[in-house]
Amino acid sequence: MSKFITPLYNSLKEYVPGEQPQDKKYIKLNTNESPFPPSPVVIECVNSEAVKNLKLYSDPESKVLKEELAKAYDVLKENVFVSNGSDEILNFAFMAYAREQGVAFSDITYGFYKVFAELYNVQTKIIPLKEDFTIDYKDYINLNKMIVIANPNAPTGISLKLNEIEEIIKSNPQNVVVIDEAYVDFGGTSALNLINKYDNLLIVRTYSKSRSMAGARLGYAFGNKEIIADLEKIKYSTNPYNVNRLTQIAGIASLMDNEYYENNCNDIMINRESTVKELKKLGFFVLPSDANFIFVKHPDIQGEDLYLKLKDKGILIRHFTQERIKDFNRITIGTLEEMHSLILAIKEILEEI
Amino acid sequence: MSKFITPLYNSLKEYVPGEQPQDKKYIKLNTNESPFPPSPVVIECVNSEAVKNLKLYSDPESKVLKEELAKAYDVLKENVFVSNGSDEILNFAFMAYAREQGVAFSDITYGFYKVFAELYNVQTKIIPLKEDFTIDYKDYINLNKMIVIANPNAPTGISLKLNEIEEIIKSNPQNVVVIDEAYVDFGGTSALNLINKYDNLLIVRTYSKSRSMAGARLGYAFGNKEIIADLEKIKYSTNPYNVNRLTQIAGIASLMDNEYYENNCNDIMINRESTVKELKKLGFFVLPSDANFIFVKHPDIQGEDLYLKLKDKGILIRHFTQERIKDFNRITIGTLEEMHSLILAIKEILEEI
Repeated sequence: MSKFITPLYNSLKEYVPGEQPQDKKYIKLNTNESPFPPSPVVIECVNSEAVKNLKLYSDPESKVLKEELAKAYDVLKENVFVSNGSDEILNFAFMAYAREQGVAFSDITYGFYKVFAELYNVQTKIIPLKEDFTIDYKDYINLNKMIVIANPNAPTGISLKLNEIEEIIKSNPQNVVVIDEAYVDFGGTSALNLINKYDNLLIVRTYSKSRSMAGARLGYAFGNKEIIADLEKIKYSTNPYNVNRLTQIAGIASLMDNEYYENNCNDIMINRESTVKELKKLGFFVLPSDANFIFVKHPDIQGEDLYLKLKDKGILIRHFTQERIKDFNRITIGTLEEMHSLILAIKEILEEI
Repeated sequence: MSKFITPLYNSLKEYVPGEQPQDKKYIKLNTNESPFPPSPVVIECVNSEAVKNLKLYSDPESKVLKEELAKAYDVLKENVFVSNGSDEILNFAFMAYAREQGVAFSDITYGFYKVFAELYNVQTKIIPLKEDFTIDYKDYINLNKMIVIANPNAPTGISLKLNEIEEIIKSNPQNVVVIDEAYVDFGGTSALNLINKYDNLLIVRTYSKSRSMAGARLGYAFGNKEIIADLEKIKYSTNPYNVNRLTQIAGIASLMDNEYYENNCNDIMINRESTVKELKKLGFFVLPSDANFIFVKHPDIQGEDLYLKLKDKGILIRHFTQERIKDFNRITIGTLEEMHSLILAIKEILEEI
């Protein structure tokens, strides 16, 4: 750091993305990407004609993309926001809604919430998950703070029920409740239908997981039109052209082939269930998951040890050092072949200890 | 706006991008884009294989892109930062360096500086340009504030001399001086060589103008490695994967064909000089420009009037409502054919008044 930086950031701990090592080719089960490429429709639309047009600015309004998202999810265009990855929406929400009110989220959840809270120096209430790693929705009633809940939660994969989400929204009418649905397409239940009933709900989504476009950086959000107008105002005050041309085209094309993505999600869910079965046979404790990953631990091998041994065998999974979950690892669900390789490698490791 | 938004943003006036009307095809001379497409090398590299790989996150470090930029500009990788458009770098600089120190910039310059200053609620010293729209560098000596200077300036197109820039940097050793070189490739002089001499210099650049990639969203910056580390810290605390995969590929490919872009810049400069000559013949007052635009006014027609009449004829130029420059218009330099059409249209308009 330089001597010029504001003292506020001296102690700031930035987010640490999952590792992307370049030393050899790994089976990547560490960053919850899709194992499938984007739809052929996307590949067709992002063509040389589109690349030529990069000389022109992208539409700052992302009008067509918003219209297509609105159509696909049966809401109005005014209820849709798009961004350079869903992290940008979370960032804007913290800027807009946490300053005076403070924020609440759980102890085990997406690590970025804590970074935003520190970045903006907002009062933070950390609510521990229950012993079984579920959220007790009653902990979030009448908090009088901005609330952020990942549903399904990460890295656990566990969902809250829709009626519990609704109780939380209903009991905090003076504050925005952010439901981060990054992983909802793998078996979770969306709160989308509640945006017309409550003016304090912001639903955050991403193209990075179920739509196979982590590298394109495209997030989207649904909410009351006034909430969306807030986010637009912050966008126009920080980075008006936040979504580039090719990503807008890819995002629109993706919506033309929903069947392809639904099939992929089904495949992931099938692979998840068979992987869970195999791992349980091998003695693993596995949390119930509605996401494209599972959170697992084994009584005979430490989390970090398993992570390192798998990496040695060319398979990357995600290990977290946080005390409460250090025995666990998060494993992204890949193709059937990748999951077979994983199970084989784990069998070898368990036999060697 | 919603009732939930922080009061700080109630009076915030967001940036207004140049208009991108969709009602008909215009000759677009309003947003300083390049009239030329990206290099054929870029078009070749952003191919279907690259689109397939969108399933994977982009490299958050943008390692290869930074290495190639470092090579191209003869600096170290540690002196390079890349971003989702250069606005993102300006945003990060305001976050990092303006909070306690305040900020200074001129009254007539890139409109976004004022938006950032308001967004972060920082003390702001607005320094008027001289009567002839030049910057008096002496106004910036010993300010003890973060300083932002666009060089060449926008929308005037006028440059500061390198020795004047150096005096400003030297006399403000406790503060970061941001030199925004968005338009430097059209005849300006870069301060790049000063980054090893001064630890308080941040140079901001963009692929949007001379590299024909406004729609790809790619900005870059040069500075002392500690300044770059500050920007990285803020990036990892807001949006680690800020530059998407295809833009990284396009950014690297662009650097493989510098001759193509240098030729384009030369063409723009030639078209600029011939356009200036024609406009002066028609009675226009034209500020001396080192950029890919010119700033002009005519004694017989109001700025807004000319803008509207040209729009009517299918030609977009940029008009600003700020009192001091409301008689002027900013005209982006396009192809020779586009500039011929502009001159013809202006002749018609002047004959009709």
